[in-house]
Amino acid sequence: MDFPAELKRQIARVERGLDLHVPRGDTRPARLHTAMRYSLEAGGKRLRPVLVLAAADLSGAPGEAALPAAVAVECIHTYSLIHDDLPCMDNDDLRRGRPTAHKAFDEATALLAGDALLTHAFLLLATAYAPQPALVQNLVRELADAAGSRRLVGGQMEDLLAEKKPDATSDELEFIHLNKTAAMIEASLVMGGLVGGAEEAGLGALRRAGRDLGLAFQIIDDILDATADSATLGKTAGKDAQAGKTTYVKLHGLEASHRFAAARTASALNALESLPGDKAFLRMLVAAMAARKS
Amino acid sequence: MDFPAELKRQIARVERGLDLHVPRGDTRPARLHTAMRYSLEAGGKRLRPVLVLAAADLSGAPGEAALPAAVAVECIHTYSLIHDDLPCMDNDDLRRGRPTAHKAFDEATALLAGDALLTHAFLLLATAYAPQPALVQNLVRELADAAGSRRLVGGQMEDLLAEKKPDATSDELEFIHLNKTAAMIEASLVMGGLVGGAEEAGLGALRRAGRDLGLAFQIIDDILDATADSATLGKTAGKDAQAGKTTYVKLHGLEASHRFAAARTASALNALESLPGDKAFLRMLVAAMAARKS
Repeated sequence: MDFPAELKRQIARVERGLDLHVPRGDTRPARLHTAMRYSLEAGGKRLRPVLVLAAADLSGAPGEAALPAAVAVECIHTYSLIHDDLPCMDNDDLRRGRPTAHKAFDEATALLAGDALLTHAFLLLATAYAPQPALVQNLVRELADAAGSRRLVGGQMEDLLAEKKPDATSDELEFIHLNKTAAMIEASLVMGGLVGGAEEAGLGALRRAGRDLGLAFQIIDDILDATADSATLGKTAGKDAQAGKTTYVKLHGLEASHRFAAARTASALNALESLPGDKAFLRMLVAAMAARKS
Repeated sequence: MDFPAELKRQIARVERGLDLHVPRGDTRPARLHTAMRYSLEAGGKRLRPVLVLAAADLSGAPGEAALPAAVAVECIHTYSLIHDDLPCMDNDDLRRGRPTAHKAFDEATALLAGDALLTHAFLLLATAYAPQPALVQNLVRELADAAGSRRLVGGQMEDLLAEKKPDATSDELEFIHLNKTAAMIEASLVMGGLVGGAEEAGLGALRRAGRDLGLAFQIIDDILDATADSATLGKTAGKDAQAGKTTYVKLHGLEASHRFAAARTASALNALESLPGDKAFLRMLVAAMAARKS
């Protein structure tokens, strides 16, 4: 398989889906819909929606059936970035080289665009899958749980609290990684499986793979922040150390971090092996995330 | 019927539901869950969740079947107030005589508590009604549509834009009232009807009643802001005029505003009449909203 070409093809599917399933910028209220699209169209790896599509393909979902679920996941991810960048949170002016939403528009518009993207994710699931109510119920529960107070938002909350005390414990760090990062990656694979009609065992394997991939992904983020230069990274490197933030690297050192990331990646690949079907793309995607330089 | 006693009984049901269906303040992350409950427990009229319960009772919902839907609606309403009060929006320090969430906690916690309440509403619908997937699908679609970019958030966006231009048109004002206020009141009655298994005709009547009640409710808000004193109102009166904000009163005058509110109230009562069952409580609730002094 030509992995770069296949990844490009999957990302193009996601871009088409975003254009198809999010209100156009010229519909009322135009400023709100324009701000929603501005942040959605900022690009990025599209890791989460590509995981939805890959898991759905693997589970036998027909054609573009998983596209609305992929878009819903990316809406949630994008809302969390918009709110994360706000002055009362990380106060970032740039994301992926472009002004953040509150810089390109204003704080109130950015806040509302985030709220609207979060809400739109659920509207999309409930409308696109309306002929399959049991699927709607499963998708909404999975996504709302992963994005909710115990997981994504909860991880964000504990991350904020941890920044204020540089002696965060290993337990606190694990809570943050599991919930702020791994929850949505896990939900992406599970939602793809749900659209493809995967059985309990298959969903369990996808969930374990997502959890491990998510943990590896976050620790590699920590490693890159500590070791890469800003030019390669496309964003300011060394921010964690500068902020005195507790990271896996700070708590356990670089060598142990590399070891942990490799172990989680191996474990994710192992979980995938139990699934039927052609796992080549998902396997290569997991490996590419482990080997990434930015 | 002893309307005040019955209203009190319905509000007590809502309070019990909130306590039952929202994560406890001592569960992790405690600060986030405490902030969510702080804002939920600030009280208020509980108009929206009471409308859910009343419409469900009327439509024949058994026992407390509508309680999760009522709580979901109040979670959305409360999130919208928390975000509304933030410094980048209305910058309010007090709500119902208590410090707003960002004053009692901090801006980041308030932002996240709002996000978490919004997400929790959908999680609650997908879990509490899991044995009835078609009901989950209908409830999620109704709520996400009413709370989404074209309605609640969209109305909020246009309201913000209108504040910056004191010559907002009657069309802009109608968009704001219909979406910022009436959408969630409409959804409350419809969701109650859905839980009670109301047919298309019944749902249509509930939707029309909610729309009219919502429009009357907002215009009475405008009238009270222009005419009541702060002590009666429990919040600063005259804020709209002071801010140079376009309201129904400013555009059409007090007399026309009273006339419009009365017409909308009559129209809401009329829509209710077409429904089967004992409408006494709903009828009195609509009348009480029209006659309210705060």
